[in-house]
Amino acid sequence: MDKTPLYREVAGRIAALVAGGTFKTGDRLPSIREMSRQAQVSINTVKVAYSHLEDQCLIEARPQSGYYVCPRSLQLPKEPKINRLGIGPQEISSSKLVMRLMRDTTDAGMVQFGAAIPDPKLIPAQKLGRLLAGASRSHAAESAGYSTSPGSKYLRSQIARWMLKAGCTLNPEELIITTGASEAVFLALQVLCKPGDTVAIGSPIYFNFVQMLQLLGLKVIEIPTSPVEGLHLDSLRHALRTSSIACCLVISNYSNPLGSSLTDGGKQELVAMLAGAGVPLIEDDINGDLGHNDERPSVAKAWDRDGNVLLCSSFSKTLAPGYRVGWIAPGRYHEATLHRKLVSNIASASPTQLAIAEFLASGGYAHHLRVIRKAYAGKLARMADAIGRYFPTGTRITRPTGGFSLWLELPEDVDTVALYSRAESQHITIAPGRIFSSGDGFRNCLRLNGAFWSEENRWAVQSLGRMAEELCRKPPIESLEP
Amino acid sequence: MDKTPLYREVAGRIAALVAGGTFKTGDRLPSIREMSRQAQVSINTVKVAYSHLEDQCLIEARPQSGYYVCPRSLQLPKEPKINRLGIGPQEISSSKLVMRLMRDTTDAGMVQFGAAIPDPKLIPAQKLGRLLAGASRSHAAESAGYSTSPGSKYLRSQIARWMLKAGCTLNPEELIITTGASEAVFLALQVLCKPGDTVAIGSPIYFNFVQMLQLLGLKVIEIPTSPVEGLHLDSLRHALRTSSIACCLVISNYSNPLGSSLTDGGKQELVAMLAGAGVPLIEDDINGDLGHNDERPSVAKAWDRDGNVLLCSSFSKTLAPGYRVGWIAPGRYHEATLHRKLVSNIASASPTQLAIAEFLASGGYAHHLRVIRKAYAGKLARMADAIGRYFPTGTRITRPTGGFSLWLELPEDVDTVALYSRAESQHITIAPGRIFSSGDGFRNCLRLNGAFWSEENRWAVQSLGRMAEELCRKPPIESLEP
Repeated sequence: MDKTPLYREVAGRIAALVAGGTFKTGDRLPSIREMSRQAQVSINTVKVAYSHLEDQCLIEARPQSGYYVCPRSLQLPKEPKINRLGIGPQEISSSKLVMRLMRDTTDAGMVQFGAAIPDPKLIPAQKLGRLLAGASRSHAAESAGYSTSPGSKYLRSQIARWMLKAGCTLNPEELIITTGASEAVFLALQVLCKPGDTVAIGSPIYFNFVQMLQLLGLKVIEIPTSPVEGLHLDSLRHALRTSSIACCLVISNYSNPLGSSLTDGGKQELVAMLAGAGVPLIEDDINGDLGHNDERPSVAKAWDRDGNVLLCSSFSKTLAPGYRVGWIAPGRYHEATLHRKLVSNIASASPTQLAIAEFLASGGYAHHLRVIRKAYAGKLARMADAIGRYFPTGTRITRPTGGFSLWLELPEDVDTVALYSRAESQHITIAPGRIFSSGDGFRNCLRLNGAFWSEENRWAVQSLGRMAEELCRKPPIESLEP
Repeated sequence: MDKTPLYREVAGRIAALVAGGTFKTGDRLPSIREMSRQAQVSINTVKVAYSHLEDQCLIEARPQSGYYVCPRSLQLPKEPKINRLGIGPQEISSSKLVMRLMRDTTDAGMVQFGAAIPDPKLIPAQKLGRLLAGASRSHAAESAGYSTSPGSKYLRSQIARWMLKAGCTLNPEELIITTGASEAVFLALQVLCKPGDTVAIGSPIYFNFVQMLQLLGLKVIEIPTSPVEGLHLDSLRHALRTSSIACCLVISNYSNPLGSSLTDGGKQELVAMLAGAGVPLIEDDINGDLGHNDERPSVAKAWDRDGNVLLCSSFSKTLAPGYRVGWIAPGRYHEATLHRKLVSNIASASPTQLAIAEFLASGGYAHHLRVIRKAYAGKLARMADAIGRYFPTGTRITRPTGGFSLWLELPEDVDTVALYSRAESQHITIAPGRIFSSGDGFRNCLRLNGAFWSEENRWAVQSLGRMAEELCRKPPIESLEP
């Protein structure tokens, strides 16, 4: 909840002028000096604003000439609609597709546009390795010796301190370290629900959450989520009035797969609404540190007054997925969550906890985030641009403000499970829309992992676009018969 | 299933002579030369045999004089009876005690006779730390980058190779790496059972397994286990005939808490019986590498012909509990187990997997085991001796041949939960018998963690003995009234 810096305000105004058509593709922008005068800000602020817009591929500098509006800003496809009614309650179906997708991630020969894996080049592996080695030396006993949940106190203190940026005052004693955010959410669901219960989820939602609900024998009410404004609160309100709901699971910031967030007001309303209904909220904030505009948005937990919010996150997207360090602040469900964690596996591995605690303590994390936020913003902008070029007319695409996933809505007759199979044979993996819901929706949607965008992988986007085009044009099966 | 070396045969014969009274406490044994002639083995073999018996505190060398039978061998209390009828099916009760016990383990000011924690001095923390650092350098990407289950192939290959010693031919593809053996068993139970199902367990059994059964809403039939011969197979046969059982959970080697094992024949019979009944076996072999006689016993899985055995183990007792590296070979339940692992937490941490794989590959593990097996044998022998001295008359005690736990049966009127509370106030933690069962049994029993035996902790055994004595003598509450 940092205050918006001036340069971002200026950049925002310019972006609005471009969006509104004041400056069109190829137009030259006012010089830095001119803009400084017009906007009544310092020359330096304009420089930073222009450079920010460059990172987002909105404008480009041409040597000896000035700044120009990039072509891409107009080619970019529309945002997806997603405004259908909520689905449910209903039982969830099969899991084969998700297992295949997970297995694809271990295949180094594939272009990893499927699972939301961070770019290996943006993982500070060497630095973390040194910290890991250091911790094993200086804390040999703590590192190898008996460990039990809630996990490293040092790490819990560092997380509590970090989360102040998200408006959240946590005591280290409230936190439990988990094996990634997945375990955090899985524990929370098990603590709050018994088989047959109904869970309200933002939809579409991370496919592994759908798997969890299925494994636990839970029913689902899917609350529509806007690619721009996040969870549709009125739909949730309606569901709370009409159904008996055991808990609500929401990705509050840069949601997976849509990339949209609730505003502060929205979060506050969500927390109040659920507290009023006596329904606990599982809040997943795994992408919270990955805002492209270098801001740290609030978490809903910041407005939690009675321990009704179970906040879950991890360092798997920002630092090192292989370290498997996540956490949960389970509010008034602390004792039950701790018990379930102890029974499930006693504790998560110690050495990686210590290494990440050191990383946070050293201040290295904040610097690292600045680097990767910018990098992911750039990757998504360039990938979106490529999609605009190569995908069939009618394709819609999200404009996430954080994280590194893009969500695409293809023309209605394209089945993205078919696209997945074709792509797999070309050594490209994608995440078909169907697995992001408990129902049959999103069949013409897909999520792409923008972290693996690079010019070298442009061919893969081009290839996906061609395959999608073919699936569009494919005549219905009947007409193949004479 | 190594062949018994000659020195151990000789040592066994001498131990039998001591047990039979041929040599009594304080008697001088034949000199090494004499014994070599009598037993028709080399002088060196006798030397090693005597040294082995010394480690077990059966005999002692007196300088310039020879070898003598130690006093302790006669003072050692009898073995516990434990021959009651099976309990169940019934619901399981509370968990507060276990959470308190787990919390005690993080208190450095306490004597850790409670949880079965290895001796920190016997954890190769520095060596593992170096391997951890090495792996993070040479496999930076694999270590920090995205990882997914089934986990490190390198580690799985090393485990498969190692388990050949237990008569078990495993393909690395059959294995799934878990967060300790606890997660392995928890996954297996979830895959095999639904709430309300009945599980047959060896009893008494590791308290966390009792917690798991409770959390999962399972019913329990407790099959009596002998402190000498392991699981009572006839009781299991009876249970299989009379109840509908979803699966059977057994610690086959050096069971926790009793320390007894099934013979090869017993294991074979167990596997055949369960396969015949169509009931899967979850086999926990966590102590399998900790045989005091330096042998590696077989696992029941070695006789599994149709994938009916789900074998679980870890390196938490032998190498580093904090690394949380365990594994499961789930037989024909591989796909279901892998799916549940992926959904639960995607994967366990990578760096510690790589470090342990290196440890195994380097041959360091076998050497390390020789050292710690001997150390734990000695610790248990000395602790048992101290218990014999300080505990009330009528106390019975196990003679485990592996692992590092001792199980005590105190006079019937001693409530070990009361003893636990008193001991806690003296900064000693123990594991009361009650938590090792789903029922009300074992109220006068307790498990002591022998890994923390040392002369410096003798006062704690003495103190426990005194408290137990007081609890024995305490007049019944009625008689306090005039």
